[in-house]
Amino acid sequence: MDDKRPLILISNDDGYHYNGIHSLIKVAQRYGDVFVAAPAEHQSGKSSAISLDKPVKAHLVEKREGYTAYEVSGTPADCVKLAISQLMKDRQPDLVLAGINHGYNMGISSLYSGTMACVYEGIMHGVPSVAFSYGVFTRSADTVPCEPLVEQVLKRVLEKGLPKDVCLNVNIPPFTEGDVKGLKVTTSDLGRWVNEWEKRKHPMGGEYYWMTGDYEMADENDDCTDMYWLKRHYATVTPCHIDQTDHASIGAISDLLL
Amino acid sequence: MDDKRPLILISNDDGYHYNGIHSLIKVAQRYGDVFVAAPAEHQSGKSSAISLDKPVKAHLVEKREGYTAYEVSGTPADCVKLAISQLMKDRQPDLVLAGINHGYNMGISSLYSGTMACVYEGIMHGVPSVAFSYGVFTRSADTVPCEPLVEQVLKRVLEKGLPKDVCLNVNIPPFTEGDVKGLKVTTSDLGRWVNEWEKRKHPMGGEYYWMTGDYEMADENDDCTDMYWLKRHYATVTPCHIDQTDHASIGAISDLLL
Repeated sequence: MDDKRPLILISNDDGYHYNGIHSLIKVAQRYGDVFVAAPAEHQSGKSSAISLDKPVKAHLVEKREGYTAYEVSGTPADCVKLAISQLMKDRQPDLVLAGINHGYNMGISSLYSGTMACVYEGIMHGVPSVAFSYGVFTRSADTVPCEPLVEQVLKRVLEKGLPKDVCLNVNIPPFTEGDVKGLKVTTSDLGRWVNEWEKRKHPMGGEYYWMTGDYEMADENDDCTDMYWLKRHYATVTPCHIDQTDHASIGAISDLLL
Repeated sequence: MDDKRPLILISNDDGYHYNGIHSLIKVAQRYGDVFVAAPAEHQSGKSSAISLDKPVKAHLVEKREGYTAYEVSGTPADCVKLAISQLMKDRQPDLVLAGINHGYNMGISSLYSGTMACVYEGIMHGVPSVAFSYGVFTRSADTVPCEPLVEQVLKRVLEKGLPKDVCLNVNIPPFTEGDVKGLKVTTSDLGRWVNEWEKRKHPMGGEYYWMTGDYEMADENDDCTDMYWLKRHYATVTPCHIDQTDHASIGAISDLLL
């Protein structure tokens, strides 16, 4: 491999056989060597789950000059951890990309995202990291129209880097509903899910529940948020971190408890 | 049920048959009615994973005046979601408690925590929420010595409430190594895991990996962090939120991309 070309690690939560990851691979190969570590099974909604209680295997799918692809029998977080710590021991990645997820990771829902877990692992290992998600949920969604936007973000991040411990959550609205009007840097809407379950009767008796739900925005008129601009057909970029401490309330909690 | 007594929802990631959750139940019953929704199977390391692709069932384990307990066939986040949205439809909880986890949820590791997922669901549903974790990992760990500390925090939170959208991550060091010296309000250490995998040979051929690792603190001398004080045998309380936006870098990312 030519050490002057950056090495780009790509993962996702859908698996290797989705269109989204191949759009990322295609764009990334224009700028660097590519190493893929994708889950062997669909892993939507897995958040930052890790495999503590079962062994993880890596299966080499493809290897040629400048391109290596593995399927990993674990979660999205496992994929990036295993790639960085074991599969890429000879050369560490210069960048982690995740996605393109089939479906948004916007607002509070990004908490459940395996795609976001990939980029959290990236920054935890000190590697600049960007997640991409597309507002069409179907497996067969055509992600080719997203590629110019992916390229625009990728080029800038490769040229200029990212602030330490900050990753990007990029969401792209459906091209099937019209052209994307532009790019906005946003905050994550802090809304919530309601009507989260549908109760059903089992034919043999007993009840079970399917997860479902409606998203309620925290504030529909807050023009800082990802959801505000996605609704208006802009792509959004939310800078994210993994510090869960609420620094603003340290004083209040000290007063409360001490 | 007496509506004047608060209703306390309790969950965890270990399951109903661990000592930790029964310590929480015992203390909570002194102050309110208790509703338990615990995972039917051990769910460590599940983060905020949700069950998108399989149905979830709830099994009533126990019901008597002021006490109801269910086992739920899903993740910790599923348990709290299902409890609040379906199982507790008649009366919403006044407080969510999670734990006592068998093992710390400190530093960056709390990202992987199913215990923390419970309290994130709590605050997402507008309910004050507190997670408790104990620095002894074994299933049989005696959590009775933690109970006075649990009671101290619980009383204050019931009396005074918590700031909106803020939950508490309480960690308690092992009593087996001496008394707890006091309580500190802390930040979460932003270190990282290294040596994360152990590679093994399968007897039939091929390789597999077990997750393992060593935690490297971001700064061993930072006396604001949970890990600094847990090492010095203090219990720690870290206020946490679910806003993953890195507000401080919005300007820098705008300069980078726009």
